[in-house]
This record gives sequence, C-alpha cells and structure tokens, in this order.
Amino acid sequence: MAEIRRDLVKNNWVAIATDNALKPDDFPINKRGIDTNGTHMFCPFCEGNEASTPPEIAAYRGNGSETDGPGWSVRVIPNKFSVFYLEGELEKSQAGIYTNYNGVGRQEVVVETPQHGLDLHDFDHDHIVQVFCMLKQRYNELSWDERIKYIQIYKNRGIFAGASQDHSHSQIMGLPFVPRWNSGPADYYQKHGQCLLCAIIDQEKQSKVRLVHETEYFLLLCPYASRFSYETWIIPKQHCEHFGAINEAEIEDLAGAYRTYTQVMVKTLHNPAYNLIFNTAPINLPYQPGYHWYLEINPRMLVNTGVDIGTGIYMNPVAPELSAALFRENMIKHN
Amino acid sequence: MAEIRRDLVKNNWVAIATDNALKPDDFPINKRGIDTNGTHMFCPFCEGNEASTPPEIAAYRGNGSETDGPGWSVRVIPNKFSVFYLEGELEKSQAGIYTNYNGVGRQEVVVETPQHGLDLHDFDHDHIVQVFCMLKQRYNELSWDERIKYIQIYKNRGIFAGASQDHSHSQIMGLPFVPRWNSGPADYYQKHGQCLLCAIIDQEKQSKVRLVHETEYFLLLCPYASRFSYETWIIPKQHCEHFGAINEAEIEDLAGAYRTYTQVMVKTLHNPAYNLIFNTAPINLPYQPGYHWYLEINPRMLVNTGVDIGTGIYMNPVAPELSAALFRENMIKHN
Repeated sequence: MAEIRRDLVKNNWVAIATDNALKPDDFPINKRGIDTNGTHMFCPFCEGNEASTPPEIAAYRGNGSETDGPGWSVRVIPNKFSVFYLEGELEKSQAGIYTNYNGVGRQEVVVETPQHGLDLHDFDHDHIVQVFCMLKQRYNELSWDERIKYIQIYKNRGIFAGASQDHSHSQIMGLPFVPRWNSGPADYYQKHGQCLLCAIIDQEKQSKVRLVHETEYFLLLCPYASRFSYETWIIPKQHCEHFGAINEAEIEDLAGAYRTYTQVMVKTLHNPAYNLIFNTAPINLPYQPGYHWYLEINPRMLVNTGVDIGTGIYMNPVAPELSAALFRENMIKHN
Repeated sequence: MAEIRRDLVKNNWVAIATDNALKPDDFPINKRGIDTNGTHMFCPFCEGNEASTPPEIAAYRGNGSETDGPGWSVRVIPNKFSVFYLEGELEKSQAGIYTNYNGVGRQEVVVETPQHGLDLHDFDHDHIVQVFCMLKQRYNELSWDERIKYIQIYKNRGIFAGASQDHSHSQIMGLPFVPRWNSGPADYYQKHGQCLLCAIIDQEKQSKVRLVHETEYFLLLCPYASRFSYETWIIPKQHCEHFGAINEAEIEDLAGAYRTYTQVMVKTLHNPAYNLIFNTAPINLPYQPGYHWYLEINPRMLVNTGVDIGTGIYMNPVAPELSAALFRENMIKHN
C-alpha cells in the first residue's frame, strides 16, 4: 500500500509505499545499468511466460487461445508492484502538521506485444492500432469506478526514461485525485474563457515555427515551453476532452502519425530513451471546461539535475523551434 | 542566452536556450553512458588545466600561486555553458498567448578539489569546510546584484544525478525570480503563522521515527514526503533564513555532519549518484517570514518516469521511516 503525502515545501503530493520497500540492490539502475538489451534474463512479459504475471485483466487473443496462455497480441495485467489498490474509500489522515491519503487507486501494465526486442515504434500499423484500442478500452472501463478521478497513461522506454522492463509495455495509473500539474488547462479556461490547447493550435498553425507534421485529425508540434529537449506533442485538432472518446478513424490516423514520427525521432536522436504521456480530462468530478487531451513524447536525453529538482524549473538546452525544424526536415526525407 | 518561458499547462516556467543548441551526440548520456569512471578523458577541472576554463571568479590559493594557474584548493569559474547572464534588465515579452522573460541570471561552477577521482564525501574535514566557506562567500557576493532574486546552490554527483563532469564540483545559479516551488515555506507561514521547518523539527524530534542524526547545530532526518528514496535533509536547529548567514562554528559542524552522513549513505546505498540541494530564502525582495535554509541530499536510485513527469507526483518506493531507521543503524556502526 501507499500513502499519498502532502509535501508542504513544494505544495505538492508524494505517493510513498508503506511496506514492500525496495532494498538498495533492487533498483533497476544499480542492477542493470544502461545496457537495456544486454543479458537476456527471464522476461515475465514474453509469450509463454503468462503464468509468472498476475491473471490478465484483458487481452486481444486469437481464436481458441486461452486466458493467461499464449496466443495474444496485446495483454493487460495488474502491475505486480502496485502501491495503489481499489479497496475501500479514500480517507484523509492527519498526524500533527502532516496530511496523507490512503493509496486508493489502480496500476495496470499493458504488454504491447508478445515478442521481446520490438518496441512500439517498430510495430506494424495495425499492431499500433491495437495498442491504442486497448488503452482506450481500459481508460473507459476504469472510468466506471467513481473513486478514480484521473487516469494517467504513460510509457517508459529505456532505462533513462525509468523503464524497469525492456519488453515493450505501457502503464495505466488510476489516481483518486487530480494532480495539481494536470489542472493547468482548466485554470487557463477559467481565466481566459477559452481552451488552452485550441489556442495553442491556432497560434502554432499561424506561426508554423514549432510545427512538425499535420495529419487529418492531428497536429504534431514542439511545445513553446518544452521541458525536455526534442519534446513533441500530438494534439487532436478538434476539441475533445477525453482520450477515451477517440473514434476508430482517429485511432487509425493517430497510429500512423505516432509510427511515422517516432521512427523519425528514434533515428534522429540515435535511439534515445523516451516517455509517452497521455494528458486528458479528470473523470468522476463535476464538469470543468478547458480540458483537451493530447500526447506528449519526451526523449530523455538528459537526466534531471539538482537545479530541476530544487527549483522545479527544467533546464532545456534545445529550443523547440530548432527541434521542430529538424523533425520537419527528417519527416520529409522519411516519406 | 535563454528565455524563461511560461508553461501554461503545468503553470510553471522553463528556461530554454535560444542558441548554442546541443546536437543529439553532444548529450552526456549518449556520449558517456553510465561509466563515469571509465576512459579518463581530458578534464578541464583538473589542476594544471586552468587555461581551458573561463577566468576564475574566486579561489582559495596557496601563497605565491597565481590566478588561473595551479596551486588552489577550491576554485570558482563561470559555467562555460551558461544560458543566464548578468547583462541588462529583466524584460517580459509576450507573443500571442505565450510569455517569456529574458535570461538575466548567473551560473557558476565551484570546482571542489584540484584532484580528479575524489568526491566531496571523500575529502578530509578541513577541505569540506573550505567548500562550504566558498559557497557561502559566493552566495553573499552574488546577493549584492539586485537583479538576482533567488540563489540555487546544487551538486550533481554521477551521471544518474545529471552530472556531465566526473570531477567533483558544485554549481551556483542566480535566478531573476523566485521559483514557485521555493515559495512553499512562505505560503505555510502566511497560513499558519509559524515557520514550517521549525514545526517539522519540533514534530520530528518528538516522534523520532524519521530522525537520522543530531549534532550541536543540525538535525538530520528523512522527510515525511520524501520524493526520492533515501532522501535526507540537514536542517539548522536554530531558525535562520539564509544559508549565507551561516557562521564559522556552524560550518565546522555542518562539514562534520555532511561527511559522516554521506560516507554512511554512499556505503549503505552502494555508491549511488546523488544531488545535494541548498534551500534558502529569496534575496533582494521585500521581507517575507517563513524561510529557513536547509540541505537536501537526494540519492538517485531511480530515473523519474512518465508518471512523475505527467502528474508531478513522484513515486517513491521506500518509506522515509525505513530509510531513517537504516541510516540511524549504520551511523551508529560507523562511529
């Protein structure tokens, strides 16, 4: 279990495991170094090893294949190292000046392929479509639990992006509150009476300097205040609050955009670690206007340093105007 | 130069270099991997190589040694890769929905030793005293420039803490504004009418579960809402706002506490990367009560992942009560 504790200095919250502590040698960095493709240890995500994971929650399976057996293309399991559980109600506790909530929530792992050594950007188009379909399905299924107020979907690729398993996978976290960092778009709407992401789209389409690519339904750009070098967003052009509302045609288009862009990015940046992060609207709360879902792709070229940690201000050595120009050029070459 | 840009989604700011962009191959992780003690390339911080750094700002030198020559024990130079400069005045610009400030500020490097391969925690007591004296001196000297509103002193040790140089060094960054993350103690004072850090000291001394060590002037503890596994704070027991106000007796005591604790920590955690972060009060602004300087030592056992980046909520798998108990035990064995 975890406690979600208020950090009075940063005016923020921290989730802390109260049991099941990792020992110094358990940390993936200490154990595995940077060599993500080195010694091929036993992998619980590989086809045939289903028994070594918790029972599956959902899977896309071939005819005749059995639950928790081989024969799947995408498979969702509970995170074995969960610190959040959907048990009981959210409770606030106070101990002197300190406040915490209990760890009501949910952590799932989406194993994106039965095959070890291929990453999401290497998949063929239809398989990427399947992954996004499964993420949508789990997003919508988890939304039914009223204790969950925010769903964070994300992917860690490579050890410098925080991955502890090489095998290509995404993660879904259901949180019992809306993190303050995720309420920016609603704050913006309250102040300006318009959707922040729609305003960004308008301005970026005019100025063009940070545009990377455009498809039927999506705009790809390097954001004005990129926290990470070569950070890129994929934004639905039509205002839409929840990732869970994406339709079939949009998923097809998104899979194409994701595949082309990430192949170019991985080549351009020489196979970096990266995070894929889904930003979306809160759920199970009174409606607040201003949310507009989008994807963030953050190559992890640098580790965050003492100054980022001390001040909360990321130091990014590459202007998004330069990274957008580089990606634009390489997207054209790629086609 | 840099622009400090407002991130409208996170309600935060980002400093972005507008020229001098790093190329993909320039990033230290790509170039050097995890092997911080491997191939011994030319080091600009080593004694004898002073000509390959910008001219020194300050140094502790032996009699007869010459500026920018050998014969020093601690040496301060401008950061060669600065994106902040103390030139002109702070100016705000607006471009459509976007806001930025110009990069008025200061970045310095404190080379902590002429000798390559020794780290701050390996130094003898007197040399650690010298390093803290120099940090105090530069803090106070930089405070005279009214354009600087906040001074962030920090140290990155090891590639997983964001270090780009092996040679032991600290960094000083003068910022033209107070980062929102650093105004928590003042917010707390406004709300509760007391100093947050003093309240923490009182409560922790009573409960004892997160205490690590106590000296004449300092309390060492693992904070309640630790963002990092094994995070530890060194807090002056007497209320004091600015690190720059530390006196000689306190520096002696701090050097002893730092040396003992970090030697135990490095041994306990098997030589991890870590950040040392100085938290202190703003400068050159109207007085606000509630600040109380302290040091943060953050071992970097994990890389921050998509969920930390997406939500701003750190996932810490080790409760501070457990890490404090481990450190307490090992501090006793060490003595």
